[in-house]
Formats: sequence, structure tokens, C-alpha cells
Amino acid sequence: MRSLIVGRFQPFHNGHAKLINEISKTSDELIVVIGSAQYSYTLENPFTAGERVAMITAALKGSKFKEFYVIPIEDVDSNQIWVSHLEAMVPKFGRVYANNPLVKVLFREKGYEVKTTKLFNRDEESGTNIRRLMIDGGNWKKLVPETVASVINSIKGDERLRQLSEKDE
Amino acid sequence: MRSLIVGRFQPFHNGHAKLINEISKTSDELIVVIGSAQYSYTLENPFTAGERVAMITAALKGSKFKEFYVIPIEDVDSNQIWVSHLEAMVPKFGRVYANNPLVKVLFREKGYEVKTTKLFNRDEESGTNIRRLMIDGGNWKKLVPETVASVINSIKGDERLRQLSEKDE
Amino acid sequence: MRSLIVGRFQPFHNGHAKLINEISKTSDELIVVIGSAQYSYTLENPFTAGERVAMITAALKGSKFKEFYVIPIEDVDSNQIWVSHLEAMVPKFGRVYANNPLVKVLFREKGYEVKTTKLFNRDEESGTNIRRLMIDGGNWKKLVPETVASVINSIKGDERLRQLSEKDE
Amino acid sequence: MRSLIVGRFQPFHNGHAKLINEISKTSDELIVVIGSAQYSYTLENPFTAGERVAMITAALKGSKFKEFYVIPIEDVDSNQIWVSHLEAMVPKFGRVYANNPLVKVLFREKGYEVKTTKLFNRDEESGTNIRRLMIDGGNWKKLVPETVASVINSIKGDERLRQLSEKDE
Amino acid sequence: MRSLIVGRFQPFHNGHAKLINEISKTSDELIVVIGSAQYSYTLENPFTAGERVAMITAALKGSKFKEFYVIPIEDVDSNQIWVSHLEAMVPKFGRVYANNPLVKVLFREKGYEVKTTKLFNRDEESGTNIRRLMIDGGNWKKLVPETVASVINSIKGDERLRQLSEKDE
Amino acid sequence: MRSLIVGRFQPFHNGHAKLINEISKTSDELIVVIGSAQYSYTLENPFTAGERVAMITAALKGSKFKEFYVIPIEDVDSNQIWVSHLEAMVPKFGRVYANNPLVKVLFREKGYEVKTTKLFNRDEESGTNIRRLMIDGGNWKKLVPETVASVINSIKGDERLRQLSEKDE
Repeated sequence: MRSLIVGRFQPFHNGHAKLINEISKTSDELIVVIGSAQYSYTLENPFTAGERVAMITAALKGSKFKEFYVIPIEDVDSNQIWVSHLEAMVPKFGRVYANNPLVKVLFREKGYEVKTTKLFNRDEESGTNIRRLMIDGGNWKKLVPETVASVINSIKGDERLRQLSEKDE
Repeated sequence: MRSLIVGRFQPFHNGHAKLINEISKTSDELIVVIGSAQYSYTLENPFTAGERVAMITAALKGSKFKEFYVIPIEDVDSNQIWVSHLEAMVPKFGRVYANNPLVKVLFREKGYEVKTTKLFNRDEESGTNIRRLMIDGGNWKKLVPETVASVINSIKGDERLRQLSEKDE
Repeated sequence: MRSLIVGRFQPFHNGHAKLINEISKTSDELIVVIGSAQYSYTLENPFTAGERVAMITAALKGSKFKEFYVIPIEDVDSNQIWVSHLEAMVPKFGRVYANNPLVKVLFREKGYEVKTTKLFNRDEESGTNIRRLMIDGGNWKKLVPETVASVINSIKGDERLRQLSEKDE
Repeated sequence: MRSLIVGRFQPFHNGHAKLINEISKTSDELIVVIGSAQYSYTLENPFTAGERVAMITAALKGSKFKEFYVIPIEDVDSNQIWVSHLEAMVPKFGRVYANNPLVKVLFREKGYEVKTTKLFNRDEESGTNIRRLMIDGGNWKKLVPETVASVINSIKGDERLRQLSEKDE
Repeated sequence: MRSLIVGRFQPFHNGHAKLINEISKTSDELIVVIGSAQYSYTLENPFTAGERVAMITAALKGSKFKEFYVIPIEDVDSNQIWVSHLEAMVPKFGRVYANNPLVKVLFREKGYEVKTTKLFNRDEESGTNIRRLMIDGGNWKKLVPETVASVINSIKGDERLRQLSEKDE
Repeated sequence: MRSLIVGRFQPFHNGHAKLINEISKTSDELIVVIGSAQYSYTLENPFTAGERVAMITAALKGSKFKEFYVIPIEDVDSNQIWVSHLEAMVPKFGRVYANNPLVKVLFREKGYEVKTTKLFNRDEESGTNIRRLMIDGGNWKKLVPETVASVINSIKGDERLRQLSEKDE
């Protein structure tokens, strides 16, 4: 079974890692789609698609999948063509893991099996919380895989976020 | 006289129907422009352009116009080219019916005659109210023409809205 | 049965009219999609989408369809999302009439029934030939429905083509 | 030294004029980039790029620069390519004046010298305040150069803003 | 009178300079629109918009115009909105100088006065010929103003063209 | 050393495989960029980006790289921003392998080390030749890695090409 998961991964964190570990129990191949690929250098989307590719590839290293694919995809204006756009950019897949209501509706209308994912500890292990910790100088590193922290350090990702959060004086 | 009216029609409702009935007293042809055509599957814009074409064509059936045209038009980034974009996509027209201040300014600067439309019962007969009723399971059907309710039922439009309004857990 | 036909209609001619007449024998509703809607004022695409809407609506007047829809659609870069883009812009349909190999492949891969259309007298009744006659002052009017000739005259369509074909000196 | 300054200039005001006067003490050429060029006829962005070109060119008349360039640039989706997009549209430059944190980060990552600009009297001399005064009929003219007020008058810019701010009834 | 001229200016040459000199006899302001601004680094369009801004501004230095504007404009897909797009990006203008049949048709349909320009010595003084000379190492410098040759030298423009013309081996 | 190679890979063939084998002698990580990702279902670009991701991932299986990344990238209009667009979509890289003159010029102007690649047997091992063989029913399979032939078979890629090459009758 080749499964697919979509996220913005700003950044990839332990919640994602646990979820992917769950998926690996029933799927032998995984496609990780990096959504909103065109955004970067904002408070909501600090990291480029390429930086997110590096994080996720590092984090998946050593996972149990026979094969995985990490593919950035830019948003399109129209929701009704989004699944087709995605289908054109990734290898064929049989199952989708998603939580977002829109994503669930869109894939189901195209006939895909959609599994709802349960995220534990969502107050802490969320992109929003981690980005806030980066700006405030808090301990964000414990919330992401070590390999991801290492990628973020190499690009001075937390410093970038702090600079972006400064007031326009 | 060929007149033009612009709306998002999410969905087409009785207020639109009354307004078009008014226009039919002084115009023998009507162009209905479906604006923001590219949006769909959101809380503000649940229906695709094609679904809205079906609703409006069904509703206009039996109207007094000698001819009518129902044409979806995607938004453009730049307001100053919006009227030109629209002119390229529809047959020539002589008069515009509009309420929105921006639409009125843009058409007037191009030299069009713009008539302000008066909508009665706007608290109830508005897209916003009808979409809320769909989500809450209220009686939205009394606020749209029967032919429109029938189109929405055939695509399970209210169920779609309810699913889109679920929480991302 | 609601059928769909796609063309550029530069301009709509007698070949199209005969084909649509054939379709009316087995379909009671028709969607006419005006492709490449964004192009106009070129030698290949002289007429705007709106002008083509006017031509086709005039030509279909009096046809046997219970309902018809004339909808302009802009091209998208990616062939694989083209059918989805089209599906979002038109009411649902059950059958497609097409000759173009790409169009046939794309609709078939999405599971649509595609009927190949046979065009008679294609040397004369083709957009290419009619546009050439317009430039050379030949008798193009006999190759299009009278109602279409009347729309083209009202916008001085043949004169526009002649001006566009002048040399850049 | 050829320096560059970026702004939306909705409209160009005395604060901009003072800043440019400061820059003229150490730079002999200036590029003024009009950002978000595609927006116009909104409450935040009432003036077209061309109108802003006219304002700024009029205001720079008589400045001490050996040469200046006024160039409108449309936004791009992706922040990481914005500097490249800008580099393609303007002559080469050696220094950037900016206050906005994002603009500062983006230019610095590309290796540019970025000078932070200090704006005095920012409560009054800001686009936001001036646009509010235009809507309310206040004295906005004292906050912009005379030449700019004259351009705005010639296009009835304050009346446009008032019309755009009317309620959709 | 504020006049407007459109070109790709790949590069600006003596033919353009003579034409602009002619215009300066009856117009006191000039807008030079750099068309196809988004293209660069191709055999047909080797120079960026910014490089062309630099060439033209240098060439116009010392001309008789009270004011001139040099504004790059990206192409739009649709010819029918091109004039509106241009109107949004430049100050108001009263007259257009053009040779290209499409440009003439589009401006005339919007009601502009369009003057046809006559270019002498077009075999030599054309962008096509000058780009060919650059590739072949011929004497292109005598066909452009000295100030333009100096801009092209500073960016090693002819070397860029030679590299782009190499075979893909 | 992390190296980068760009191609359209329509399809990935033995020439690519040999080249990548060469690169693996001096680089321990490789980024394979699939250019013109948005095109598919044409005679020049029959395969979707996702299908090409599948081919290349299959072909690289068992290569000597410590890590490889396969990333589809859509074209942008403007050559001057293409490298920035690419930089945003892939992990950082130190060296580029390229043959195309434009690609070489663009990367060199951004300061990258660019190595020219030598392709042997280019008459046979080229996308153009392989696509022709697919249409004509020739022996294309000997020119691509077995794993790639298997992907193409699973999507009936050669049949798709034959259908696309049929005449529009």
C-alpha cells in the first residue's frame, strides 16, 4: 500500500513523526506532500520548500518504509482542481491520511479512501507553538526530531523567525 | 436593452430572483456574470462555478427575457483591468446593475450607466444567512427558488457545507 | 442525456452547426465549451470569448435542445488538470463529443464516454479557411449560419482580421 | 552610489520626501520601486501604479540626484524569489533603504547592504492616516508635497476613496 | 502633449533614437513602455527589463522632453486586456506611436489617436540584426547610441548572447 | 558534496543513468530536478511530473549516493528568477551538472560551479528518439533502465503517446 500525507510542515515535528510511524505499520510506501510550497519567510511559513524537503528527508531516514517520496506542491487558486494538481505531481497512491475538513472532502469526492489521523499532545506539538517558542527563545528543540533541529540550526531558522517578528519601526 | 448583473451567487436566492424580475421590466436581454468563479469548497464559496451556472439557468427558465447569458468569470488581481477582463468574456452590454461600491466605481469610470439595486429583506435573503442555515440545519429552502433548491439537493450542497465547517481536530 | 462539446469556434461555422444538429438527436441538453477563451485579436484567434458566446447563442436559438449552456474557459498550463478545471466551470455532463486526440485521451482517462465526431466538407468548413477568406475578401458568409454572420458584421470582424494581417512596416 | 528604496506609496507623502532628501546626501542615483503595483481601487491601495509613478516623478523633480528611476513592480507569491524578481526589473544598485523586517531579511540574505530608515512624525505622515483623512474630508494636503496634491486632485483621488468607502447597501 | 511608445528594445538602437527625436518635435512628455518585460536571457530577448531601463534612460538623457518615463510592463495572456493593463501602469497619455498592427488595432479600439511611425534603414537598425552582429562578433556598436553601447559593455551583453547561442552538446 | 542535475526526463534513459553514475564518483548526495513539471500529455512531454518522480526514484534505487532528492519544478516565465525559484524548492547544493547553454549561463551568473556533462551515444539515447520509437512501435525498452521500462509499462506510457500522435480527423 502506498499512502499519502499532506502538510505544511512549518516545521516537521514530533507529532508528524509519531503519525508517520503509525502509518508505517500498514503502508510500505509513503508520499509526503509539502503543501503551500511557494510560501516562505513569513511568520506562518518561515521555511522554504527546499528546507522542508531537507528536514523531512532527514527525519524519515531510518523509517521502516520500503520507499518514500517527499514532494513540494504549490497551492492553486481553485479547490476543485487541487487534487488533480496533486495527482499530476506525485506517483499513484491508494490511501490518504488527513485531518483537515477541506482536504478530507476533496479527496473523498474523488473516490479516495481517507483515514483521519489522531494527533496527541497537540497543544505542544504543533507548528504554531513551535514557531512561537522560536521567537520567544523557548525550548523548541525538544518538540522536533534531532535531525530536524540540526537542519534548522544549519540555516539559523530560529534567528530568521525572530528577525521577521520584529516591529516595522 | 441588454443589461448585466454581477454576483457570486453562493447560492442564488429569492433576493436575486426579485431583482432580476425588476430588471426584466426594462431590459429584454440579461447577462448574469458569476464572479469569483475559481472559488469553491470553502465556507464562503461552497459551490463551483458550474454548479452556480446550473442553479441560475434553472432559476431563469421561464423569465421574460428574450435572451439571457450565464457566464462564470475568474477574479483578476488588478481591479483596474477587471472591467476589461469582463468585457472580453461577455457579449456587449449597455447597462449595469450593482450595489457594491467598488463595482460601481469601476464601471462608472469606464463610462457605463450603473443602476443601484435595492434589496428587500436582506437579513434573511442573503448568501451569508443561507449558508449559515445550511450548516445549522435550518430552513434555507424557503429562501431560494424551488429550482435552485433542487440543484443544491442533487449535489448534496448542504451536507458539503456541514462537512467543510467541521473542526480540524 | 447532457452532452458536452469543446471548440475554439473562431468562428462558429456550418460544420459545427451540422454536428450539433446530430448531437441533438440523442441528447436533450448540451454544454458548448469555448476553449482558449483568453485569446483574441490574433490571426488564429480573432474573436473574444464574449463575441463567441454571442455567435453560438444566436446559432443555437431554435435548436431542439431542452437546455443549452455556452461557457468560455481559459486554458491552463497543465493538461492533466484541464478536465478538472473544466468540470469546475460547467454543470455535470455524461458524454463528450471530440475529435482532437489530446481531448479524447484526457476525457477517457477520467472515465468519460467520448464519441468521435465526423466533420464533412472540412476543407471549406473550417475556421482556418474561413479566416483566410475574411482576410482575402472571399465569400465566408456562406460557410457560417446567418445569425453568426450577423454577429460578425456587427463587430466588423472581417475588417479586424484584415487589419491584424497587415505587415509591420 | 546608486541606492534603492521600496514602498507602496499610497500616496507618496512628506515622510517619504524627507527620507529621500536624506538619501540624496550620500547617493547620487536613486531607484524608487513602487511595490504591490498591481493593486488599485481598494481602501488600502486606492491609486494605480501609473498614478503613483506620476506622483513620485513630480515629487522628485528638482531633487539633487544625478539620475532617478521610478519603477512599478508587481508582487510575486514567493518571498524567496522577490529579490530576484526586483533585480530583473531595475538597474543594478549597491544599497537598500528599508524599514520593513521582511524586506530587510530578504535583501540581507542576498548580500545587500541594508540601511534602516528612521521616519519622524509617523502618526501623521503615514499612508494609513492620509487615506483616512481623505475619506473623512480632513486636511490631507498638508501631509504631501504640493506636486503630489496636484496629481491627486487631477484624478479626483480623494473622491475615489470616499466612493470606495461607502457601504454596500 | 504626453505621448507613448511601446517596444521590446532588445536593445535600444539608433532607429529608436531617431524616432524619439521626431516625437519630441510635437510632444513635450514621453512615456517609453518596455514590453515583454519578463523575458531575458534568450536569443530573442537577451536583456532584462532593468538593463533596458538603464539603456533607455541613458539614451534619453539630454533629449528635449520636459519629462519622460521609462516603465517595464509584463505581457498578459489576453490581448483584449493589454491596453487596460498598460493604462494601470503608466501616467495618463494622449497619443500613441506604433507600427505593429496588433498594437494599432488595440489602441484604436480604445479610442486613442495612433500615429504610424516610419523607420529608416530598417535592415541594419533592427534588434534582430544587432543581436546577430553581437553573436557573430560584428560591428553592432555603430548601430546604437554611445550611451547604450556603454551600458551593454558594462554587463558584457554581447558575451552573454554568444554564450546563449552555443549548441547544447 | 551535494550536486544538482536538471532535466525534463521524458523519459529518464540510459544516458541519464550513465551520467548520474559518473556524478556519484565525486558527489555523495544528488538532487534531481524534474524541469517543466507542469507539462504532460503532449508529444514532447508525455509523462506527468509524478510519473517521472516514480521512474527516477526507481532508477536511483541501489545507486551509491548517501542521499538523493527527486523534486519536480514548474517553469517560470522569467529566466532571471528561475535559479531563485529552484533554490527555494530544493535543499542547498554546491555544484551543478548541465549541458544546456541557458542553464549554464544562469547558474554561473549566480556564482555556482557548473560542470559540463558529456553524453555518449546521443543519437540513440535521447528523449526525442525514445519517444519516436514509442510511437512507431520500435524497441525503446533497451534504451532505458529496466526499472523505468516497468514504470512506463504500468501506466501504458507508449500507448498514451501513440494515441496522442493520432491525426485530428
